[in-house]
Amino acid sequence: MAALADDFLIGLREWLAIPSIGADPAHHGDVAASAHWLADALRRDGWPDVRVWDGGPALPAVYACWPAADPDAPTVLVYGHHDVQPVDPVEQWQHPPFEATLVGEELFGRGASDDKGQVAMHLLGLRAHLAATGAAQPAVTVKLLVEGEEESGSPHLTRLLDDHRADLACDLVVFTDTPLYARDAPTVCTGQRGVYGAEVVFTGGTSDVHSGRAGGSVPNPATAIARLVAALHDDSGRVQLRDFYADVVEPTEAERADYAALPFDEAVWLANAGGAQGVAGEPGWSTLERVWVRPTAEVNGIHGGYTGPGLKTIVPARASVKLSFRLVPDQRPERVADALREFVARHTPAGLRAEVIASGDGAPPYAVDVSHPAVGAVRDAVQAAFDQPVRFSRTGGSGPAALLHGWLGVPVVYLGATLPDDRIHAPNERVVVPLLLRGAEAAARLWRLLPERLS
Amino acid sequence: MAALADDFLIGLREWLAIPSIGADPAHHGDVAASAHWLADALRRDGWPDVRVWDGGPALPAVYACWPAADPDAPTVLVYGHHDVQPVDPVEQWQHPPFEATLVGEELFGRGASDDKGQVAMHLLGLRAHLAATGAAQPAVTVKLLVEGEEESGSPHLTRLLDDHRADLACDLVVFTDTPLYARDAPTVCTGQRGVYGAEVVFTGGTSDVHSGRAGGSVPNPATAIARLVAALHDDSGRVQLRDFYADVVEPTEAERADYAALPFDEAVWLANAGGAQGVAGEPGWSTLERVWVRPTAEVNGIHGGYTGPGLKTIVPARASVKLSFRLVPDQRPERVADALREFVARHTPAGLRAEVIASGDGAPPYAVDVSHPAVGAVRDAVQAAFDQPVRFSRTGGSGPAALLHGWLGVPVVYLGATLPDDRIHAPNERVVVPLLLRGAEAAARLWRLLPERLS
Repeated sequence: MAALADDFLIGLREWLAIPSIGADPAHHGDVAASAHWLADALRRDGWPDVRVWDGGPALPAVYACWPAADPDAPTVLVYGHHDVQPVDPVEQWQHPPFEATLVGEELFGRGASDDKGQVAMHLLGLRAHLAATGAAQPAVTVKLLVEGEEESGSPHLTRLLDDHRADLACDLVVFTDTPLYARDAPTVCTGQRGVYGAEVVFTGGTSDVHSGRAGGSVPNPATAIARLVAALHDDSGRVQLRDFYADVVEPTEAERADYAALPFDEAVWLANAGGAQGVAGEPGWSTLERVWVRPTAEVNGIHGGYTGPGLKTIVPARASVKLSFRLVPDQRPERVADALREFVARHTPAGLRAEVIASGDGAPPYAVDVSHPAVGAVRDAVQAAFDQPVRFSRTGGSGPAALLHGWLGVPVVYLGATLPDDRIHAPNERVVVPLLLRGAEAAARLWRLLPERLS
Repeated sequence: MAALADDFLIGLREWLAIPSIGADPAHHGDVAASAHWLADALRRDGWPDVRVWDGGPALPAVYACWPAADPDAPTVLVYGHHDVQPVDPVEQWQHPPFEATLVGEELFGRGASDDKGQVAMHLLGLRAHLAATGAAQPAVTVKLLVEGEEESGSPHLTRLLDDHRADLACDLVVFTDTPLYARDAPTVCTGQRGVYGAEVVFTGGTSDVHSGRAGGSVPNPATAIARLVAALHDDSGRVQLRDFYADVVEPTEAERADYAALPFDEAVWLANAGGAQGVAGEPGWSTLERVWVRPTAEVNGIHGGYTGPGLKTIVPARASVKLSFRLVPDQRPERVADALREFVARHTPAGLRAEVIASGDGAPPYAVDVSHPAVGAVRDAVQAAFDQPVRFSRTGGSGPAALLHGWLGVPVVYLGATLPDDRIHAPNERVVVPLLLRGAEAAARLWRLLPERLS
């Protein structure tokens, strides 16, 4: 395993050096390079069927399959992604985001945790599985789908699933883009929030105008966008889109008790939440519950008018806000999109033109039935690899788990080995390497457990 | 006069080529170059006493004096400024902002109208006055104060006035930074709004955080800044700072009748207000009144989080808004500053740190008593130069008229020949050259009228 681990780290650092920022068209060449790096790595590992899917509108995705010797063995599809978030503010990085710097047990770099590190973990897991069994083929048929648009909301994933239905057929999806609860409290994730994102733009004039000329007598798009944002929540923090909470399934008392039993240190949690100075949010729910099982409306960015040095007394011609909504079962992104359009129409003052620009279709939320045998197998594999008991948790992030479940018609389980304080989407993203090695061991064990558990 | 006019235009175009953007420290060398250009031009014109005041904390100002032959003649101080506004969005300029492009009667460039054009008009006015009288000295002692920080709110003007009290002693200030009402309806301005500007910054964490990690459970500075802005006005558009309207002196019915009698075409007015699509504002007041005699709160700029392409699901660490308040007699910037700090403190959510960064001390509003004989002299001079009757108007812009009045203890009258649709502070600023020539003629006449009117 030591030789495999060295090899794993060398490969991961190479991959992390490729700035595959999917949101930025200037980096789409890098997304393609990242896909081909992964395909080459899989071929070097001996995967018999490796393909880069780059013929459609989607940024390149990688597919691979390593069949089990037993034709009756279950088929699992490991899902991950190789696109990464933008890196600004880049000046806040202590190491260059695309140089994959190893400091002690931590590997720093954009994508180290989200999600290249966890995809690489599965490559290592299969090598470890084969090494442990001594067989030339895995105990289950392992398929891999590593897409290039997850950070953009997976806008073409349904198309990939549709175009490659036979290739992707499986009995179980293993979703590998979620963290453990904590280093000293490894958990098995059982659900993720969904997300819907859109930019709202208000336009007044065709150019900025001197506020001495027109201030007080024309609508100000920046004021209007602020009033729109302010109306998004009531004073208690509840989201004010029409029927926003109508489809929300609340967690059971047993689930809430499970979350309450996890160790929680607010000061540590805040330090890992970007150094926030206090918690806030919907009343009646704990901090973990607000992140895991409650929906939100967040401003990701707001802009309008003059923001350079000094005073410039204008009424801006235009102002905009980027909003995203985290969703929980059984909310639907398309219903939130409708409600947002209705909300914007209701809050557009006379004299301004409104535009709502969706960032794709969004991702529905997902939660797996924890009584499914595959969930128990994952828990047992993680327990053995980490050598301690684990609880179930959820995560507040989003991904296409619901979409994979819906299109493939199979349950989705979660196997991840990163941490919530890995600073994903923020400067100084890192991954803790020994946890990835344990995660690989958990995967290696899971492939051995599944034939019996799913029989 | 034709030779003088040619010379005037050559000089003004040279001056406009100097990008004296006072708000941007990178252009402070240009502000100095602009001051020296003006001093050289005054010396060429024969002004016997010309000085650049650049020893203190203020950006360089220019002082000049041309004494009357009669030691008992009144002394007038012409006030203007040579700093200019920033030029962004620079891509919206049809001609480069610092190339002073002449198209027909219009001269395009940053500062053409605000305020280099009007200062140059007074240089021409004095040459025309001397040419008309055939004397070697003007009929009144003419002093000139052209500062370099007006667009930044004149933060060091009181210091200049204090340091140079004897130099600046006068019987009347002629303020030359306001427009006529319209090309076909020249007016004499009798007052300006004041202004107070400040940036409010809300800070949460030390870095942005993934909204899947903490969205819904920490305060969002961008949401908070939006809620602060939204609370600035009630639904009718009235400003909600404490006691904001307590000191407001409403215009008399006679003044309102005068404003109502001016020609007003809303479509034309909107086209000149940056192409705005409709009027809006405090109920019970006309559009002109909202701009001239009512106070406002405007967002000049707002910024927070990610504003690049695509979706980036973060809770920003920081968000900020640049606000400015236009004030009317007898509001005081320092009282508005206090009220804003109190308002921000009241609207800062738990878990966020607030900072209020004032852009200088602001400028108090000012209105002159229209029965003062100097006001009548200005009206007569403008009437003669433009060969038509004129009404009184006001302007919604700001300047240090109240400050000059307070420190020098004399009335301030307004003599300007620009237009409200000159797009000052916006792309494609221009000035109509024939109006500046008429303005120079009005100044030349005013210097002849004043000895008798002020005796």
